[in-house]
Amino acid sequence: MPRFALKIEYSGAPFYGWQRQKTHSSVQQTVEDALAKMAADDPSLVAAGRTDRGVHATGQVAHCDLKRNWDLFRLSEALNYHLKPWPVAVVDVAKVEDNFSARFSAVERQYLFRIVNRRAPMTFEAGQVWQVSQHLELAPMREAAGHLLGLHDFTTFRSVMCQAKSPVKTLDELRIEEFELPHGREFRFYVRARSFLHNQVRSLVGSLVQVGRGSWSPDDMRLALEACDRSACGPVSPPHGLYLSAVQYEEDPFAKISDTA
Amino acid sequence: MPRFALKIEYSGAPFYGWQRQKTHSSVQQTVEDALAKMAADDPSLVAAGRTDRGVHATGQVAHCDLKRNWDLFRLSEALNYHLKPWPVAVVDVAKVEDNFSARFSAVERQYLFRIVNRRAPMTFEAGQVWQVSQHLELAPMREAAGHLLGLHDFTTFRSVMCQAKSPVKTLDELRIEEFELPHGREFRFYVRARSFLHNQVRSLVGSLVQVGRGSWSPDDMRLALEACDRSACGPVSPPHGLYLSAVQYEEDPFAKISDTA
Repeated sequence: MPRFALKIEYSGAPFYGWQRQKTHSSVQQTVEDALAKMAADDPSLVAAGRTDRGVHATGQVAHCDLKRNWDLFRLSEALNYHLKPWPVAVVDVAKVEDNFSARFSAVERQYLFRIVNRRAPMTFEAGQVWQVSQHLELAPMREAAGHLLGLHDFTTFRSVMCQAKSPVKTLDELRIEEFELPHGREFRFYVRARSFLHNQVRSLVGSLVQVGRGSWSPDDMRLALEACDRSACGPVSPPHGLYLSAVQYEEDPFAKISDTA
Repeated sequence: MPRFALKIEYSGAPFYGWQRQKTHSSVQQTVEDALAKMAADDPSLVAAGRTDRGVHATGQVAHCDLKRNWDLFRLSEALNYHLKPWPVAVVDVAKVEDNFSARFSAVERQYLFRIVNRRAPMTFEAGQVWQVSQHLELAPMREAAGHLLGLHDFTTFRSVMCQAKSPVKTLDELRIEEFELPHGREFRFYVRARSFLHNQVRSLVGSLVQVGRGSWSPDDMRLALEACDRSACGPVSPPHGLYLSAVQYEEDPFAKISDTA
């Protein structure tokens, strides 16, 4: 059976996360249902990142084996047709080798966390950003982020539910950019690593916001990291500001075909 | 009675336009209802632009007379509280002179029209942009836009419902910018004039898209303008890509106070 990789964009709002569950709707099940309608098949998806309830994606990657050797353009068109009216879209498809795994072949995950800093309630992006009304200061957040880069024991920034064998991870990037908006300001946190612990990005961002609003000094972030103690973490940020934005592989499976977006 | 100016942001999606109607919900009525709850009053709003059904705003300006001399911060906080859960937010407030009119004192209106050019259905910005799946070319659209600038009889680009006395208007800006998105491209049309005819921006953008997709040459836009004939207009673009983004006055009523956003 030919294997296909899908690049998927979705709003996490109506779903109980990526992973299929018995009683609640998930992104995985929604895409698998769309595949089943097209393929008269029971295809099973394997994804690079099993995003939590409420977390969004602009660049999730998943693979599946299908009975037919689909034309790539027709595959994405048919999938998007059957995904309606869910806020899920297949933005790229590729034929891949049988040994390609969206999960195990991935060498890097990239996340984006969006904060909008303003007092007035959100209108257009409600549920798509974390709205923080207190003033946030960029420079101390950047200084604090510097303490988190590289190889560390991230026990402080790891959910107690985390099933990873080791809390030691390498954080390759934690870049914070500030943008002026027509009303207020936006902070974007760009985070890259080979893999992450459960709730790691939301724990890091929540703690950085403690620094941005002046409750923590940048050095408090270093102390929290060195404590290796979950109770030293700041309040975990809500899921609706978080986006799985890209997954990297040794060879980009989507590189050779034209973008179907 | 003290007079106040409000800067208002809203999604047009759930409303039958700005203007109060007997049988359908409008932005005007929604804000007036919120004012009535706070003020035990029956305040009436006058707005700079009476946006159509489905059209959004990030910088609508309206004025009203209130019984109390409100503290500006408390006024915006109370209004935003009573506006929930509607996608309407007051992003700035100001005390103004009794002779200030949000409508008649305005010297310029600015609109933004957003097109996203991609095949996959929209997820995050569904209903907030006009999605066009055919390829659009920037250079010919810019050339065509050049024919529209300045003083013209805009009969071709005017709804038959338009009540303006004259079809002659001066278009001060029609600037088109192209942005790369993670999936696809966005075209932003920035449009400025002292005032507009009914459906003028949507008629202009709809015709420019004819040029962008190659159905019209840039010179066809000039011929359409010179025809002074409604039937020479391209298909009017849908309302949900259009935003009233700013209103200019001789003196900015919001300039002297800190932004409440």
